[in-house]
Amino acid sequence: MKLTLAEPKYLKDSISIISELVNEAKFNITKEGFELVAMDPANVAMVIFKLLASTFTEFNVDKDEQLAINLSNLKQVLRRSKSNDVVTLETAEGKLKIEFKSDTTRTFSIPLIELEEKEQRIPELKFPINVTTPASVLSEAISDVDVVAESVTFLGDPNKLVVSAEGDLSKAKIEISAGTETQIKASDDKVKAKYSIEYLKKMIDGAKLADRVNIQFNSDYPLRLDYLAVDKVMLSFILAPRVEND
Amino acid sequence: MKLTLAEPKYLKDSISIISELVNEAKFNITKEGFELVAMDPANVAMVIFKLLASTFTEFNVDKDEQLAINLSNLKQVLRRSKSNDVVTLETAEGKLKIEFKSDTTRTFSIPLIELEEKEQRIPELKFPINVTTPASVLSEAISDVDVVAESVTFLGDPNKLVVSAEGDLSKAKIEISAGTETQIKASDDKVKAKYSIEYLKKMIDGAKLADRVNIQFNSDYPLRLDYLAVDKVMLSFILAPRVEND
Amino acid sequence: MKLTLAEPKYLKDSISIISELVNEAKFNITKEGFELVAMDPANVAMVIFKLLASTFTEFNVDKDEQLAINLSNLKQVLRRSKSNDVVTLETAEGKLKIEFKSDTTRTFSIPLIELEEKEQRIPELKFPINVTTPASVLSEAISDVDVVAESVTFLGDPNKLVVSAEGDLSKAKIEISAGTETQIKASDDKVKAKYSIEYLKKMIDGAKLADRVNIQFNSDYPLRLDYLAVDKVMLSFILAPRVEND
Repeated sequence: MKLTLAEPKYLKDSISIISELVNEAKFNITKEGFELVAMDPANVAMVIFKLLASTFTEFNVDKDEQLAINLSNLKQVLRRSKSNDVVTLETAEGKLKIEFKSDTTRTFSIPLIELEEKEQRIPELKFPINVTTPASVLSEAISDVDVVAESVTFLGDPNKLVVSAEGDLSKAKIEISAGTETQIKASDDKVKAKYSIEYLKKMIDGAKLADRVNIQFNSDYPLRLDYLAVDKVMLSFILAPRVEND
Repeated sequence: MKLTLAEPKYLKDSISIISELVNEAKFNITKEGFELVAMDPANVAMVIFKLLASTFTEFNVDKDEQLAINLSNLKQVLRRSKSNDVVTLETAEGKLKIEFKSDTTRTFSIPLIELEEKEQRIPELKFPINVTTPASVLSEAISDVDVVAESVTFLGDPNKLVVSAEGDLSKAKIEISAGTETQIKASDDKVKAKYSIEYLKKMIDGAKLADRVNIQFNSDYPLRLDYLAVDKVMLSFILAPRVEND
Repeated sequence: MKLTLAEPKYLKDSISIISELVNEAKFNITKEGFELVAMDPANVAMVIFKLLASTFTEFNVDKDEQLAINLSNLKQVLRRSKSNDVVTLETAEGKLKIEFKSDTTRTFSIPLIELEEKEQRIPELKFPINVTTPASVLSEAISDVDVVAESVTFLGDPNKLVVSAEGDLSKAKIEISAGTETQIKASDDKVKAKYSIEYLKKMIDGAKLADRVNIQFNSDYPLRLDYLAVDKVMLSFILAPRVEND
């Protein structure tokens, strides 16, 4: 396999975000792209990542390949890339070779690892509400509730999404109304669920990849966030709800 | 009571500075503004703060009110404000409600606390010297002496203010001469006193509120600093002197 | 002695870099400039520093002088200088007096110390390879190899300089080819040696002083780096090699 990216940004930022949730992971390289589906060690969050073949200037894959890698290892190497570097990924002799090429040619190689882990399947979830809003609006809301508590309640109806939290002492509530910036598709019923702020704080870094975020959830049911840069990258998260007596 | 500010800056910066010196405090809300007089826990420094009613776009107070609040709590919430947020403060059910309104509406509420503390009275002090200088000049001088010692000597006469410190090894001396930038009104006698650099380092953050600072002191007598943004905010500090055998 | 600099930059940045390698040092002030030759405490690296008399607006030295100083002390004081300060250095009563003059006059004095240390002599080294390259290229290469290992191999021939490292798991290799940006003068033989990354990370801060760096080394022999700002400052480092069984 040989994959070339004209700029490191999407790979670098994605791996940086994913490595906050997952330590070691198996990438699938298929005709469609460079993909990963992984659970965090506590089994609370799933990461779904696809760097589309169309993002690459060269995407040479004879047959599907799997690369198991330590993500913090990979992140440290990708951090060394500069914005004008052309990045090439190749496998050879149990290693992943990563080349950064601009004025100088800089080559790193990191070990491929053994990963005894069953293939993760993306669960089929149905959501009665679908909110699309600027990624910064969700990021600010999560940072707001982080001031007062450890878990956050999402409450949605066709007119608005309410993000709120209540700590021992203080409370916070953010209303995101449907309008030109925020689109909401929802059934008439209100839906309401509680999620971990610690996990959400890691997920909202998806804002580095896309201007907008798609939010889906249901009462006492998982939440799904999708950050999508068209024809380039998709980074999604599924987060288990917190039950009321948490 | 309902108070509205068109921008969070003066409230946010003031509370951030005050919270470095005082943990819990009682604000007085009167027709004149949003005020506080408080001592630091060690009884070394007094903070006098007034956010004038004229700073507010709405200042609706039927009768004088007192709000006792944990300042680090309040600071954390105000930190979440953005420069274009309209800020509204209201009290209800033993809570202070703080609303930030721009594209979204974000509401926080923090508990009002019980504070068994006698009303602080501002001492009537007379100073033989009064120096007005750019706030940055005082800030730089305090940062300079911080390199060499823990206490600083202020020495003043009609021509100049000398800020100096002497550590076990090194010494520092800053001369601030009267001129176009610095005005000094003083009696002919020299005045000289020593103050804690640790406290002054917290107070010089008043430079966030005002371009100039007014400095008054006397020999072995308190120092008073005034940061004033006309028609908006006044933040003053009174600092006890260090006695010679400190 | 009385020395005046129209801007603090070269002195401030140099002392900041040198103080990372050497704690206490003896400066020689001669007609030629303000000089230092010192070893780091572990005797692995030598620093050679010369701030040329031509950098100073006033360079008044009757006879050669020696100033032994604690460098972290000096660094802390120089940090307080601002870019538009005129800096004056004078000795008096066992102290070094440092004055910063712009709108205000700020004076520091730090103690001269006793330093029982034999005069350091710069070793006469011969190098078969001489590489001149942008300082940033070397800095990036050292930061790259720092991700994977603790020591780095320099391998040079007339066509290229290869900087590489191999850790327990990962590897890194940077090729710097001779061309318009990088000039290499070398004999036909390859030369190869290993050096400590920890030391090199401190030395590459020389990039603050000069745009280009001169690199000389030999097989299992010291490395020499020269950062030169013409007519102003020269900062050089000699670094002992690591032997193969390190």
